[in-house]
Amino acid sequence: MTTGNTRLTNSVPLQHVQINGGFWGARQATNSAGTIPSIYHQLTITKRLDAWRLDWKPGQPKPHIFWDSDSGKWIEAAGYSLVKNRTPELEAQIDAVVDLIEKAQQPDGYLNIFFTSVEPQNRWRNLRDWHELYDAGHLIEGAVAYFQATGKRKFLDVLIKYADHIDTMFGPRDDQKHGYCGHPEVELALVKLYETTGEQRYLDLSKYFVDERGKQPIYFDIEARERGEDPHQYWAKTYRYCQADIPIREQTKATGHAVRACYLYSGVADIAALTGDAPLFEVCRSVWDDLTQHQMYITGGLGSTHSNEGFTFNYDLPNEEAYAETCAGVALVFWAQRMFHLDPDSKYIDVMERALYNGVLSGVSFDGTHFFYANPLAAYPNINPYPSSTSVLTDGYYRRSEFFECACCPPNLARVVASVGQQFYSTADDTLYVNLYNQNRALIPLSGNTVDIEQETNYPWDGDIRLRIGLEQLANFTLALRIPSWCRDFSLEVNGTPISTSPIKGYVPVSREWANGDEAVLKLAMPVERIVAHPQIRQDAGCVALQRGPVVYCLEEIDNGPQLSNVALPDDAHLTAEFDSQLFGGVTVISGDAVHMQPQEWPGGLYQPQPLLTYTHSPFTFKAIPYCFWANRQPGEMRVWIRGN
Amino acid sequence: MTTGNTRLTNSVPLQHVQINGGFWGARQATNSAGTIPSIYHQLTITKRLDAWRLDWKPGQPKPHIFWDSDSGKWIEAAGYSLVKNRTPELEAQIDAVVDLIEKAQQPDGYLNIFFTSVEPQNRWRNLRDWHELYDAGHLIEGAVAYFQATGKRKFLDVLIKYADHIDTMFGPRDDQKHGYCGHPEVELALVKLYETTGEQRYLDLSKYFVDERGKQPIYFDIEARERGEDPHQYWAKTYRYCQADIPIREQTKATGHAVRACYLYSGVADIAALTGDAPLFEVCRSVWDDLTQHQMYITGGLGSTHSNEGFTFNYDLPNEEAYAETCAGVALVFWAQRMFHLDPDSKYIDVMERALYNGVLSGVSFDGTHFFYANPLAAYPNINPYPSSTSVLTDGYYRRSEFFECACCPPNLARVVASVGQQFYSTADDTLYVNLYNQNRALIPLSGNTVDIEQETNYPWDGDIRLRIGLEQLANFTLALRIPSWCRDFSLEVNGTPISTSPIKGYVPVSREWANGDEAVLKLAMPVERIVAHPQIRQDAGCVALQRGPVVYCLEEIDNGPQLSNVALPDDAHLTAEFDSQLFGGVTVISGDAVHMQPQEWPGGLYQPQPLLTYTHSPFTFKAIPYCFWANRQPGEMRVWIRGN
Repeated sequence: MTTGNTRLTNSVPLQHVQINGGFWGARQATNSAGTIPSIYHQLTITKRLDAWRLDWKPGQPKPHIFWDSDSGKWIEAAGYSLVKNRTPELEAQIDAVVDLIEKAQQPDGYLNIFFTSVEPQNRWRNLRDWHELYDAGHLIEGAVAYFQATGKRKFLDVLIKYADHIDTMFGPRDDQKHGYCGHPEVELALVKLYETTGEQRYLDLSKYFVDERGKQPIYFDIEARERGEDPHQYWAKTYRYCQADIPIREQTKATGHAVRACYLYSGVADIAALTGDAPLFEVCRSVWDDLTQHQMYITGGLGSTHSNEGFTFNYDLPNEEAYAETCAGVALVFWAQRMFHLDPDSKYIDVMERALYNGVLSGVSFDGTHFFYANPLAAYPNINPYPSSTSVLTDGYYRRSEFFECACCPPNLARVVASVGQQFYSTADDTLYVNLYNQNRALIPLSGNTVDIEQETNYPWDGDIRLRIGLEQLANFTLALRIPSWCRDFSLEVNGTPISTSPIKGYVPVSREWANGDEAVLKLAMPVERIVAHPQIRQDAGCVALQRGPVVYCLEEIDNGPQLSNVALPDDAHLTAEFDSQLFGGVTVISGDAVHMQPQEWPGGLYQPQPLLTYTHSPFTFKAIPYCFWANRQPGEMRVWIRGN
Repeated sequence: MTTGNTRLTNSVPLQHVQINGGFWGARQATNSAGTIPSIYHQLTITKRLDAWRLDWKPGQPKPHIFWDSDSGKWIEAAGYSLVKNRTPELEAQIDAVVDLIEKAQQPDGYLNIFFTSVEPQNRWRNLRDWHELYDAGHLIEGAVAYFQATGKRKFLDVLIKYADHIDTMFGPRDDQKHGYCGHPEVELALVKLYETTGEQRYLDLSKYFVDERGKQPIYFDIEARERGEDPHQYWAKTYRYCQADIPIREQTKATGHAVRACYLYSGVADIAALTGDAPLFEVCRSVWDDLTQHQMYITGGLGSTHSNEGFTFNYDLPNEEAYAETCAGVALVFWAQRMFHLDPDSKYIDVMERALYNGVLSGVSFDGTHFFYANPLAAYPNINPYPSSTSVLTDGYYRRSEFFECACCPPNLARVVASVGQQFYSTADDTLYVNLYNQNRALIPLSGNTVDIEQETNYPWDGDIRLRIGLEQLANFTLALRIPSWCRDFSLEVNGTPISTSPIKGYVPVSREWANGDEAVLKLAMPVERIVAHPQIRQDAGCVALQRGPVVYCLEEIDNGPQLSNVALPDDAHLTAEFDSQLFGGVTVISGDAVHMQPQEWPGGLYQPQPLLTYTHSPFTFKAIPYCFWANRQPGEMRVWIRGN
């Protein structure tokens, strides 16, 4: 087995990047002041933390099999926020939770609330459905993050002990289980543990899970029979649901549950990188291309349907019914990061940026305390975003919730916002990639030097970015500046001298001897764009969406009145972008000429012959706001895709 | 209690109307030769008939709680078909089934497969969910139909005995259950039994069920507690699902499960008529108006969502996701018939006709042997018409099935086609209403005379109808000819003399002394109409549908190529109707100018800035076929609502 790290680029760790304002500064402030405390409050009042005491008694409400992961992800998010601001109160809260978790660990290292306190007899008996390894993965990620933030080892050591237990339980030996988790996540977590501890066994175990997945006979069939169940009675009907219908190395398409897919291929990309397994990376690239070319919303949302929380078929992207789970957007960000490690191409960051500014951030309210699980691209009063065979529609609007019974999304949102700084830069030998633009200062080790880089920008509301380089000595390296795919015109100057280099894989490389105080000024033209969808996306036929820079816009009823389906944007409509400092702490809004089309008089009934009607096209000035901030004001209709002419 | 029959019109019984060709003649021939035998075959191979032997043993697959109704509806359909053509083979088949049913009846009169052979301890313990009275209702309807067709009493007597048992079990006395069925149906069936036997108790019992429905405390809560269940854990979440959230007399809106609603209000309208209960009829009228003004598809389909198989909210009529259950269309036809009894207004027949020619007939394949449960108004390869929390989308097309586990739709289809003749005419004192047009001859008793009326027409492909009157003696009466709401220009002549009377409530009354051989010639102008939907139906915004006469058309991929979402019908497109004698036994198809809009070149990816693209508008001649015949040829896309300009 090749174990050399074949990554071509590496992320710059969070510790090195200080976000000191701008768009993400505001989001992180809200995350720290609103989201992380409010999740802690929910974990408390829902007894998710108390459940670690393992004192469940028959007759009491049962802890849920996912609960461990909620703690893990909250600690991870809180850990990232400590990197920026090491507040003792938060650290004490985490330490108390860690103490609970430590006490819950069994002598053999096993660590799980439900399968210790409620159904100990069912430990490891249903990998397909019961999420034990998924829980383990999130705890590992939390432990790694908290260790990196604080240097405290207790939680990490607990998870090392658990990982060692898992390593004895799973593997190729006859006395081991040859299984893998129905909900991938542990794969990427074990890679993190390997990278943190240097312990090869964790990487090997992760690779084992990946290699076993989808092999015949399918492990899920075997364990189902061992439980006395008929494997054909699998509730999700097909192992495509969990990307286990065929071996990983034969997979080429995005199928099944979107979050599972993105976590899985994140781990697979890691393993490909760390084991030098090029064919395995080709699998990731193939699935990535399939997904981003055929099944991704303009918001970066993934998963067209609630029925499998995932993918359906090419070009099937319904708007009102979109599932586009917040977690799937988050997982896509993580996956993109890993793809860039092996293939430094802006196309991955383009997708990451699309998700971050749109379908991920829409998952949280502006005040950080309420959350969307699904992120539809159109909303209408009375629509129930979660159709199911057991739900009857009830009146009301689609609004964010404080929490969910299955609460995967809120802490996922918190951890991606708290850790967004690690996406800003990548390094490769003597190249410093600037991936994302936002006010920040970073100290980045690069071929023997430390590059002190500072961005000054009001991105994404403005495409002007000033980068200042600080160096203790002259240094030869390449500064590679990303030109986002949405940008069709840009200029770049270094110390006042225009640079005319063309982008390579989406990055303009500026190779020179850099000196302290050098300045690069990048101007990304950021006009309002009318975007159309692929002609096979039937749900967007005849419609346009508005985008400016990476930000996708939407119309809300509060700004534009009701019946948004009858609003059209003529081809020649003049569109204006204006910064509104009063709205959502300052955002750019788009306005312009639109028409509201409706019959002068409707004779009654539901259907009328067209010749009997006269339609009026009432002009009005529409106002579009960033999609990520929808549903923060008065409830009403919302639409991303608006009728064209 | 007032029991005088206050019907203003009465249907003309099936026995008096002989359909001798034309559109419905062909449908009935297919029904007799294809549908009724194929349902019998399915009842046999699925052991639904054998289940009447009550020999289920633990460990065997359980009969379903709906199975009784399948037998009942099949006998009803077969009974109607015997009226037209009394084939001894079919009659022998029915008699054999009746023998089985008779033997299954318990000494106390109780009659139910599941609750006799599988769970006798649960008899009448869950009226909310378990369909016992629904089953009883369909058996009663079958028994009445078979008795009327053949004069044979055995099946009727079995059901009378069962109805008597039900009458002892349910009612206001302390020793009786004060319940009613979660799935209405028995109400209208008991009215039929009352009308067949003259036994007042059946009408009283039906009225009792109606009056109890939705009264506080809700019976379903009481019986749930008696089963040791928490009523709040009701799977459908609200009793609106079964129209039992508030008392019938307070209901004004169409809510919940569409089939239940239409069966319920059919029975309610009957009771209102037969008890002279005007306020009760106003309830029906209010719900009817709400439903037809806010929640009905252009096909007459009802029920926007699979989640409750029913209504959602006003103007919510998604096309691909439409449930529009075949049974709901059938039930709407029956309800319309009963509304007309009390309110002789063409608006009810307009809805009936809309359902019959479109959303009902689409439920069966052209050869009569395959069935749709849901009748969407748009189809796309790979769409799963039954999204549910436990189904994962699989590749494939939406096609009719031979049968269903819950097989309510096929025999419902069969009985409405076999009995459609009873919708053709109504009588009131000295008025003969002609409701539907089709080749037929009827002998109709009217104020002491028998009117022999014959229609000669190729309706719905042609709007010319020639009506010949046969009389043994001169007779004064009013012939009221329906002018469908879709018709905006008509002419009428009697014996060559133009009649200029305006329609009253949609009927032109021709009052005169009629003589043998008199002829009325009605010409209904039947141009192709472009129909638009109410501006609040967001799913149809910017779209048109094509309708000619009562027939709604659709585009299919086989005639128009793929990507139907990119096909537009310009406002000024010339539209032509042409009879195609080769297609589906002869149907009128519509053709005309359309454009296929697509980018000249798509640069790749899912989303592109519009200014980079040039759209070509390729003209082509489209072909639309009657919606009811879709999905009978090569699979592909289908759309009823097509983009306008």
